[in-house]
Amino acid sequence: MSGLDELMAGELKAVNVGLASFAEPIAAAGVSVITLDWRPPALGDADAAMRLARLMNDERIEKANATAIELVLAAQAVLLDVVAAREAIPALAEGRLLLHAGPPIEWEHMCGPMRGAVAGAIVLEGWAPDLVRAEEIAASGDVKFAPCHHHDAVGPMAGLISPSMPVYVLEDPSTGRRAYSNLNEGIGKALRFGANDDEVLTKLRWMVAEVGPTLGAALRSLKEPINMKSNIAQALQMGDECHNRNVGSTSLWSRQLAPALARQGEAGVRVLEFMRDNNHFALNANMAACKLMTAAGEGVPHSTLVTTMARNGVDFGIRVSGCGERWFVTPAPVPDGLYFPGYGPEDANPDLGDSAITETAGIGGFAMAAAPAVVGFVGGTPADAMAYTVEMADITLARSRDFQLPPLRFLGSPTGIDLRKVLDTGSAPVIDTGIAHRRPGVGQIGAGIARAPIACFVEALAAVEAGL
Amino acid sequence: MSGLDELMAGELKAVNVGLASFAEPIAAAGVSVITLDWRPPALGDADAAMRLARLMNDERIEKANATAIELVLAAQAVLLDVVAAREAIPALAEGRLLLHAGPPIEWEHMCGPMRGAVAGAIVLEGWAPDLVRAEEIAASGDVKFAPCHHHDAVGPMAGLISPSMPVYVLEDPSTGRRAYSNLNEGIGKALRFGANDDEVLTKLRWMVAEVGPTLGAALRSLKEPINMKSNIAQALQMGDECHNRNVGSTSLWSRQLAPALARQGEAGVRVLEFMRDNNHFALNANMAACKLMTAAGEGVPHSTLVTTMARNGVDFGIRVSGCGERWFVTPAPVPDGLYFPGYGPEDANPDLGDSAITETAGIGGFAMAAAPAVVGFVGGTPADAMAYTVEMADITLARSRDFQLPPLRFLGSPTGIDLRKVLDTGSAPVIDTGIAHRRPGVGQIGAGIARAPIACFVEALAAVEAGL
Repeated sequence: MSGLDELMAGELKAVNVGLASFAEPIAAAGVSVITLDWRPPALGDADAAMRLARLMNDERIEKANATAIELVLAAQAVLLDVVAAREAIPALAEGRLLLHAGPPIEWEHMCGPMRGAVAGAIVLEGWAPDLVRAEEIAASGDVKFAPCHHHDAVGPMAGLISPSMPVYVLEDPSTGRRAYSNLNEGIGKALRFGANDDEVLTKLRWMVAEVGPTLGAALRSLKEPINMKSNIAQALQMGDECHNRNVGSTSLWSRQLAPALARQGEAGVRVLEFMRDNNHFALNANMAACKLMTAAGEGVPHSTLVTTMARNGVDFGIRVSGCGERWFVTPAPVPDGLYFPGYGPEDANPDLGDSAITETAGIGGFAMAAAPAVVGFVGGTPADAMAYTVEMADITLARSRDFQLPPLRFLGSPTGIDLRKVLDTGSAPVIDTGIAHRRPGVGQIGAGIARAPIACFVEALAAVEAGL
Repeated sequence: MSGLDELMAGELKAVNVGLASFAEPIAAAGVSVITLDWRPPALGDADAAMRLARLMNDERIEKANATAIELVLAAQAVLLDVVAAREAIPALAEGRLLLHAGPPIEWEHMCGPMRGAVAGAIVLEGWAPDLVRAEEIAASGDVKFAPCHHHDAVGPMAGLISPSMPVYVLEDPSTGRRAYSNLNEGIGKALRFGANDDEVLTKLRWMVAEVGPTLGAALRSLKEPINMKSNIAQALQMGDECHNRNVGSTSLWSRQLAPALARQGEAGVRVLEFMRDNNHFALNANMAACKLMTAAGEGVPHSTLVTTMARNGVDFGIRVSGCGERWFVTPAPVPDGLYFPGYGPEDANPDLGDSAITETAGIGGFAMAAAPAVVGFVGGTPADAMAYTVEMADITLARSRDFQLPPLRFLGSPTGIDLRKVLDTGSAPVIDTGIAHRRPGVGQIGAGIARAPIACFVEALAAVEAGL
């Protein structure tokens, strides 16, 4: 700001373009300097920049994006049921298959938390008697792995979905499309962070035997299914961004479902206690709703709409509407965040989980303006929360018609990432996220903000052009 | 703003002090004019202004206010039970007594909605067979009336509490002080708006027979009582101001209580449905929590802390810590608000209800910054909501340590009205409120903002000085 005053007064001697740190030695030498917040397009990659110039106003892309974003904005999501994953996802009924978060990865490359979760899931399924034997089986090739995203599903952090686990069944009533997610285990030790001891497995067995069937029975007893998209919209008016803060959506949803659960006897009471004690209970169902919305925009030829952002703890992967099922991957970053006492960045696993589906659908980090209190969890100030949402409008195709942000005068949340805009502005998608310890079994050690790495967007743009 | 530019440029010809409308003819005549937002202290009453000058820095008052506000800030509120009003409030067990909102008033002066509610309550109690006979009994003097506030209780709108009605029992565990409120009947036709037909009375009978006893049993079964002050603090992080928006506090509270209600069998299921279908269910319990907080500050000699603001639909009354039980009353204003289709200000009853206890305790209109979505209900913009909270800091003694407002960087809500500051600034306390039709039985016709009338503050200041 003092730079600005000096500019006005004609006293400015230097203008620094780009990284603020370049201006520091100049300022230290007593020279007036102002820094412009500018980043070179396409990471300064000359080929990519020229490609971007060719594609920025391409009519085929513009038309395709208009089609794709309209499908995303119009998508609905109602919660029909909870069933065993093998009943919802055919591939899980066929053999020893485990679904995991993020782009494809095999056992030998998996990060610690995902390995821990895989071993726990193998014991849960009874494919091995203990964790040591489970790791041997995982390494042997006798168990197959596939991304949740390849089976219309999403899972937070390690994102393990095994055949017996209960999953939410969500549907877009206008298209009949369905999406699935596993159930949230609560805070503390959890499989999704790679914890897999007896306590974790005992809780998972209870979720298989009681929580899933009881929630399913309660949901099936409702006259009208719960509208999860409407729940998210209401929760955004209640300080949630529905990724790292879910207290509003969990409370609303618990209140809606409580009478039906109360009719399920003692099992219903225990499920109500489980929902009472976990402020993130609604996260997984919210994620499945986001999966339905983003999936609606998939497969529109030439569209540069990003339909998936997901991390497996090693790689960060995106998929793009015009490029179908193809993944574009880059090493996953370590989030910048707040750590629980006794932990620091050196303990952190790189970014992990399918929960970035929330940002892909225009909530989570993109809706942080609605959730100033989340900064107490992920770091920063309420002004930062506002700034993230404002910035994300630069890289998105539309504003949600349903997800309104009260602190921004009820403006719609920025929705539908255009990979061209990411490259043009240098603004990488912002993702609220939990941070897992890099060793399996330790669990969550913090929460923070991750920025999507740009390289996979550069690669995706080349693929879009190749397809024109 | 253009006036400011002209002031800077030396072109300003006129400065208008006070009402903006005075500047309009000057501006219309082409003369540059700037309006200063200034109001004369103490309504321009010369005696009151001199009294204010004497009392603004009086050490006895400063010390008394420091004591009183600390008691308010430290007060706690836990929810112990729901019982029949006659079990909690001894006077109701003795004869035909009805409690009502606001300062004292007799039948012949009551407004339409309060008369409707009184008649309904008389039929509910079985003191009359029908509404016509009930009105005769009310007029005969066979039924006595007293403010809820005279019996440690509060009730929204007409605020009727009759002996058989269920009431919440809240307690400050550190002092043992208790406060009570009736239960919210839900939206639509309701006794609190003066509706009293068979539908209203049938619901009230069900609340007496089932809702009250079932809630009471569920509350008594909890290991730890529900901390209503903490609930309010959380709800302020969820877009509630806990007066005209209670969706967060209702949902949180329903989620906390659901397992205990689910254990009450079919009656518990019906109560959970009742809570599910009413976004204002928590209001009355929140009001009783506010009553405990404000009551903690009562009776400190010489303190100018306002401990009660309440309206009976005819009069607006305040009580002040240093003046004990004495009421200072002024005719109640009509709120400025949004009306339901088919209604307008000409249909509106003057301001009504004990719910201004929320503002007296530093939430409601004082915490509107936390609840930008409430403007969709009471009118205005999110910026107005912020401005109300900022303005109320000018007339309060402290900021809450527990009630933090996320959009104001988690600043505490302005708490504890100092009547001297109201008179010094001319900023009248702002109150979010529902609007009742002036005819009994019609019900709610809108919601809006009321400003406390200043005259009762002028009178109270004279009483404070007389007591010095």
